[in-house]
Amino acid sequence: MAVGIDIGGTKTAGALVDLAALRAGAAGADGVRAAGAVLRQARTPTPVGEGPDALLDAAAELVARLLEGTPRDRVRGVGVGTGGVVDSTTGTVLSATSVLPGWAGTEVAAGLGARCGLPVRADGDGNTTLLGEHAAGAARGASSVLLAAVGTGIGGALMTGGTLVRGARHAAGHLGHVAAPDAAGVPCSCGARGHVEAVSCGPAIVRRYTEATGTAVPGGLRELAARTGTDPGAARAVADGGRSLGVALAGLVNTFDPELVVIGGGVADIGAPFTDPLEEGLRGGLLPAVRTVRLARAALGSDASVLGAATLAG
Amino acid sequence: MAVGIDIGGTKTAGALVDLAALRAGAAGADGVRAAGAVLRQARTPTPVGEGPDALLDAAAELVARLLEGTPRDRVRGVGVGTGGVVDSTTGTVLSATSVLPGWAGTEVAAGLGARCGLPVRADGDGNTTLLGEHAAGAARGASSVLLAAVGTGIGGALMTGGTLVRGARHAAGHLGHVAAPDAAGVPCSCGARGHVEAVSCGPAIVRRYTEATGTAVPGGLRELAARTGTDPGAARAVADGGRSLGVALAGLVNTFDPELVVIGGGVADIGAPFTDPLEEGLRGGLLPAVRTVRLARAALGSDASVLGAATLAG
Ligand SMILES: [Zn+2]
Ligand SMILES: [Zn+2]
Repeated sequence: MAVGIDIGGTKTAGALVDLAALRAGAAGADGVRAAGAVLRQARTPTPVGEGPDALLDAAAELVARLLEGTPRDRVRGVGVGTGGVVDSTTGTVLSATSVLPGWAGTEVAAGLGARCGLPVRADGDGNTTLLGEHAAGAARGASSVLLAAVGTGIGGALMTGGTLVRGARHAAGHLGHVAAPDAAGVPCSCGARGHVEAVSCGPAIVRRYTEATGTAVPGGLRELAARTGTDPGAARAVADGGRSLGVALAGLVNTFDPELVVIGGGVADIGAPFTDPLEEGLRGGLLPAVRTVRLARAALGSDASVLGAATLAG
Repeated sequence: MAVGIDIGGTKTAGALVDLAALRAGAAGADGVRAAGAVLRQARTPTPVGEGPDALLDAAAELVARLLEGTPRDRVRGVGVGTGGVVDSTTGTVLSATSVLPGWAGTEVAAGLGARCGLPVRADGDGNTTLLGEHAAGAARGASSVLLAAVGTGIGGALMTGGTLVRGARHAAGHLGHVAAPDAAGVPCSCGARGHVEAVSCGPAIVRRYTEATGTAVPGGLRELAARTGTDPGAARAVADGGRSLGVALAGLVNTFDPELVVIGGGVADIGAPFTDPLEEGLRGGLLPAVRTVRLARAALGSDASVLGAATLAG
């Protein structure tokens, strides 16, 4: 058994996981449930703005809650996935985004380990999400995978030979920050211009709609997604975002030649109105040599990072 | 000792290489020479258009010439780098470009092995070039590297943990086929549109110059390069090509997080008028987390593939 924790900008989620059952069950959320891989699940609001110690305290309380009644000697340890760039060898956050202010420099593994009395490993949440999808989701059985996680930003992860590509500075997987043709000149969250995140992430799709139609969308992406069936402008904004991302991903597939591309995150949950144009953009940009690449929707939703984090402890 | 062979569209080049000396010497072409790593060197025109058997015959004659007077039991084998997508496990060409027509399907390792009576391994020339630069050139000592080879097309290779990323279909490294903002709508050699090769390879730079100025360049890129000091239009065309490539490479660095980017090929030989704007485009698109990435010019020129091919046999 191992505990998986995902520390996000709004909530900290966790699960006590039977790792053998996780890997033995059928793929996907139903498979994970049917295999009895998740022994217990819990969540708590992330106390953003109260400093790193408060975040670690909240995570430690969650771990304690998940382990109530479980003998410590039956638990291998705790794995943590979190936003920002994480040195997975030390479990320290190297840099963070505005989602988790003050998080940079936090020794997550050491700090949570001291609080829990268990070995702790930590990694970026793009990596833990791919580890989860690889263990029990859309990427099960695949040895080289490109994951694009599309939400308020665009992140992801890469795997080759069944192993994560973590990068020279633990920063691999930032695939929202590749050039996209129709992003030319558009400012990106990273400070540069012209990156695909600036036209294909959730807020960018909403902004494109509002710019094109003059109509505000108070309910954000969720509202826009609900309108795609009836409002051609909404369908176009969502489709354009998907197509732009597909075109950008084609270049990464041509360069990295993965067996499988997995699309996850809240924007992917819109489904076909987003993923069909994405696939069209992707297929249109592929070299003949890589045309057999498979494209799949992520299968585990927000549980992927928690489950993948648990595998870090295995 | 091992023999390295590079089968290209115009010439087939080879060398008899002392692998220990290659790895022990100082980096760069002078270091390779000083270490006495190249025991013998030779080349022959590639009999393009005469079919794969003629190409293998020419390569076999070259191997025989390089090994004249050398006892076979002192030679580990032969490594081959060649254009196209090569299955490095079998040494078979999976697909080829118009540079080597009819090359697809050729069992290079088996065919050359039968002709030479030596074990033969084969790989794509992007990979052998990076292996050469890694053994004795600009990438020596680096464990994660992105190579961009800019010539009549744009190819390359990737390395992580000191090992080539070959991809699920042996096709990794085709980084000329990533989206570039100012390539929007421009047809690429691969059949798609909007890829960086279509604006940054040698012929594309010449075409951009001719389109912008109305002036033909009968001497091609070499003539254009010679004019960059005196003709602002030539300087601009070369700079634009470099900048476009830099912007595209930034996305790959953000995604893959290599320690080092190596720029090689005939277009890189133009030097600063191409590489300075390339570096500007690259640096302008990098995430803060990867800003310490190093950029270097390839150090071994066209010898890199021959030397890297020799290491395949080691
Ligand atoms: Zn960006
Ligand atoms: Zn192309």
